[in-house]
Amino acid sequence: MNSRLRRLRKFLDEEKLDAIFISSLPNIIYLTNFSDFTTFERDGFVLITKKNQYIFTHGIYKEAVETQVKNFILIDIKRENPINKSVKNIIEKENIQSLGFESFDLKVDEYERLTKEIDKKILKTTHLISKLRIQKTTEEIKTIKKACLLGDKAFKFIITKLKPGISELDLAAEFEYFVKSHGATLSFDSIVAFGSHASKPHHVPTNTKLKINQFVLFDCGIKLNNYCSDMTRTVFFGNATKNQKKAYQTVLIAQQKAIQQCNNFIFKHMDVPAKELDRIAREYLTSQNFPDMPHSLGHGIGLEVHEAPRLTPLSQEKLASGNVFSIEPGIYIPGKFGIRIEDLFAIENGKLFQLTKAPSKFMQV
Amino acid sequence: MNSRLRRLRKFLDEEKLDAIFISSLPNIIYLTNFSDFTTFERDGFVLITKKNQYIFTHGIYKEAVETQVKNFILIDIKRENPINKSVKNIIEKENIQSLGFESFDLKVDEYERLTKEIDKKILKTTHLISKLRIQKTTEEIKTIKKACLLGDKAFKFIITKLKPGISELDLAAEFEYFVKSHGATLSFDSIVAFGSHASKPHHVPTNTKLKINQFVLFDCGIKLNNYCSDMTRTVFFGNATKNQKKAYQTVLIAQQKAIQQCNNFIFKHMDVPAKELDRIAREYLTSQNFPDMPHSLGHGIGLEVHEAPRLTPLSQEKLASGNVFSIEPGIYIPGKFGIRIEDLFAIENGKLFQLTKAPSKFMQV
Repeated sequence: MNSRLRRLRKFLDEEKLDAIFISSLPNIIYLTNFSDFTTFERDGFVLITKKNQYIFTHGIYKEAVETQVKNFILIDIKRENPINKSVKNIIEKENIQSLGFESFDLKVDEYERLTKEIDKKILKTTHLISKLRIQKTTEEIKTIKKACLLGDKAFKFIITKLKPGISELDLAAEFEYFVKSHGATLSFDSIVAFGSHASKPHHVPTNTKLKINQFVLFDCGIKLNNYCSDMTRTVFFGNATKNQKKAYQTVLIAQQKAIQQCNNFIFKHMDVPAKELDRIAREYLTSQNFPDMPHSLGHGIGLEVHEAPRLTPLSQEKLASGNVFSIEPGIYIPGKFGIRIEDLFAIENGKLFQLTKAPSKFMQV
Repeated sequence: MNSRLRRLRKFLDEEKLDAIFISSLPNIIYLTNFSDFTTFERDGFVLITKKNQYIFTHGIYKEAVETQVKNFILIDIKRENPINKSVKNIIEKENIQSLGFESFDLKVDEYERLTKEIDKKILKTTHLISKLRIQKTTEEIKTIKKACLLGDKAFKFIITKLKPGISELDLAAEFEYFVKSHGATLSFDSIVAFGSHASKPHHVPTNTKLKINQFVLFDCGIKLNNYCSDMTRTVFFGNATKNQKKAYQTVLIAQQKAIQQCNNFIFKHMDVPAKELDRIAREYLTSQNFPDMPHSLGHGIGLEVHEAPRLTPLSQEKLASGNVFSIEPGIYIPGKFGIRIEDLFAIENGKLFQLTKAPSKFMQV
């Protein structure tokens, strides 16, 4: 954790900030390695100044934070010691003239309460922690790789369960049971979609039973030591028609074209314009007379299942060493079917590595 | 759903609002019954005017919303049709002079983008949907009751699994498997805590193995048709000492005193001051020389596991017909043990009903 704080303080200087107030839960986990706070309450905040690091929480987490976050000064938030007064005191004591805050995460009410105590003029919106997180260490990539490896195994297991009459919910439950019995959790609610259900890219599993001659789409992710994996496979249950095979091949080629383009830049030792990968896959799909994708080509992944960089048509981001991201083109025909192939990639030491390894060539089960 | 919209429009008049812009995910679920949006992205927003109701989403959810949210006008958010421009157009078209927004939920960046298009002066912060949700219908209470009933069964099942060597994580997994195989999901990550772990009220389960002569705390909730249950039981594995039994009885009596006080008001046909219940339980615990609770006595529950009303020392809320809430006193001794007893209650037709029914008298397993 200390190397993260060192990097953060270097960036503070670059952004001309004296300190940063952190409300985003994944950012708090990134800096403290403490992941017990719930996602549905505001249980903690973090403040990093040039000299000190503070963690604010209430009585429910006091003991856990005391024992697990030893290098932070714990500020126990109570009715008589509300957080904004504490922040104000630190700002005065440490003479902070410029305080970064996470306007992409902080709520309007929280901002109002904060600015009742401290001058709005010292607040500057920042994405500083995202800048740190986008550039992952070998250690972080190793953890994501481990999550992907378990995902590959879970996929291999789950396709053995395909049989007429099994439901989407049954398969999602089997996947989850496999993951949990291997000491991990889900990084998001699994998507299992039969036939026409898969034309909704984020279909929520139902009691619908599997029938012969349908595509089955699995979009499932694993969380291991707080890091996420994410993979989509679409297999055919039964015997596919020529057109169904062609649609699948089109998605696969769209993905390969994006990967190839990524490598083209990397081989020239250039950073990769994220939007360029989105463009090449998207244009290939429409050139083959399939509809435009209703989603972006991919997303960064790490502590969050969706994070920077974003592979969207308008993205200004460049993919570079230390980035981990998905490439996931898809074809969606409402009322008929949906096909998506998603893999995770990392750029490390001037090379592109595929982290998800389950076979993606057309598969009939 | 239509009765909810009717109630909402009545409240719009009372709050002198022409319309309300809704960003809170549970509030969107409340009004649309559509629960497919993820919790980690902003997939949708809702705008209710006096005449129309709009739902904004992007391509990923278009088909699902079209088929499942038929009484709303779907606005398909695209790069060339961003949400804030759409909101502006509606405001102009319907001559909206006063627009409620959820400052407790909306993020600073979202607010900034919104107010680039529309005049800040027409925006008024509102908790209107919370006011609707706090007063639950018989139908909603029935659904919560069903979730509680399944929770009772799951608790009965889980205590049969207690044996030396089983881990907190094992028990959490067994609970989850039971719940999912009964067609429900969890309303939050289960808390299973052995011995001294339970002094952290929100302990996260570990691989620690169960030993003889320890308290075991379960705080587990179920989600059924989007509605949550929540119950805590603390049982003793082995033979408790006199002091351990006394601590348990103290928590139980603190709960009973709060329940009794609640009934005292209800019998007099009075609304119940929430803070009064917190006070009576809290004071009883400290009067018996146990430490003050590091959390409030209870919380409302429904679509969210924590919602209004709040039973805190400073709460200004009154408990009344249609409210569903927890009463959950606890004793926490760091390094030693934690005991909490939590039940859910509903006030309906001038009576207090207990929804969680698993036995709470001192239990040795």
